[in-house]
Amino acid sequence: MMEIKRLEVGPRMSQAVIHGDKIYFSGQVSSEPVGDVKGQTTAILKQIDGLLARCGTNKAGLLSANIYLADINTFSQMNEAWESWAAEGALPARTTVEAKLAGPEYLVEITVIAASQALQ
Amino acid sequence: MMEIKRLEVGPRMSQAVIHGDKIYFSGQVSSEPVGDVKGQTTAILKQIDGLLARCGTNKAGLLSANIYLADINTFSQMNEAWESWAAEGALPARTTVEAKLAGPEYLVEITVIAASQALQ
Amino acid sequence: MMEIKRLEVGPRMSQAVIHGDKIYFSGQVSSEPVGDVKGQTTAILKQIDGLLARCGTNKAGLLSANIYLADINTFSQMNEAWESWAAEGALPARTTVEAKLAGPEYLVEITVIAASQALQ
Repeated sequence: MMEIKRLEVGPRMSQAVIHGDKIYFSGQVSSEPVGDVKGQTTAILKQIDGLLARCGTNKAGLLSANIYLADINTFSQMNEAWESWAAEGALPARTTVEAKLAGPEYLVEITVIAASQALQ
Repeated sequence: MMEIKRLEVGPRMSQAVIHGDKIYFSGQVSSEPVGDVKGQTTAILKQIDGLLARCGTNKAGLLSANIYLADINTFSQMNEAWESWAAEGALPARTTVEAKLAGPEYLVEITVIAASQALQ
Repeated sequence: MMEIKRLEVGPRMSQAVIHGDKIYFSGQVSSEPVGDVKGQTTAILKQIDGLLARCGTNKAGLLSANIYLADINTFSQMNEAWESWAAEGALPARTTVEAKLAGPEYLVEITVIAASQALQ
């Protein structure tokens, strides 16, 4: 049986789960959900950078991203932050839809899957 | 070419698809969608336990979970059922958003991915 | 480190990302979003056939599908197109929910994961 490694295991979820050559992450919302979608997206992407680093990898190892926007009309604002952050030439597959999130203060949530490297 | 194994193959989907070291499951709704979110969540998690068992594994092998709530205001009720069921110290990555489901009787739907073991 | 291969890399996403034995695809909407849900679903599935072919595989290699409908009441229309297209006996795991999509012209979006073969 292949080992499963988990980061930040709480009562409801782990923030990252490493198994084989893949890393699954929990949906990330801004830990300080103030400001607009662009600001929250930038904050989330920084959180994702941090989680990826703790798993021994970085944004160039992203395989897929699911983005949930509380209001789909903020699509272009989210994209401004996303494109500023994205690793050129190494973009993941991506899906963006509208969905109400766990609290009205959250304007965007991002769930990624990455390639596992160092911790295999 | 690596073999793909499927459970309960219907005209629209398979309930579980095993490939390599991962198992993908179809979104599970309560097969008897009566009662509140807590009750439906408990029923779904029991169904997931059954599917995992048929794939030779259990909830400690979960890698990720996507939870869709018909009403995000039922988040804490869903969590009561989830936390009662969760395998301590072995939680998957998780994302929860609001989404209307296939019928108004369905209050919650859960899609999981698990590590494959016995059937590899 | 295992290589990551990408198809159609843009500033926001890659249309397909191949890593190990899995291929992640971006959410596909109809490139000519006219007509009803059945027509758009048929168009999307044709696009997915094309992407799968470019990755050296086909619909029998699908592992999972997430379907987002702008209006869940179009569920049966989507299914008509889906069932006409589906590879008998080789169906992926599937989850369908309602979600507003990037533009009001898009009635359905489909995100799939497939088994990788030729390009490993």
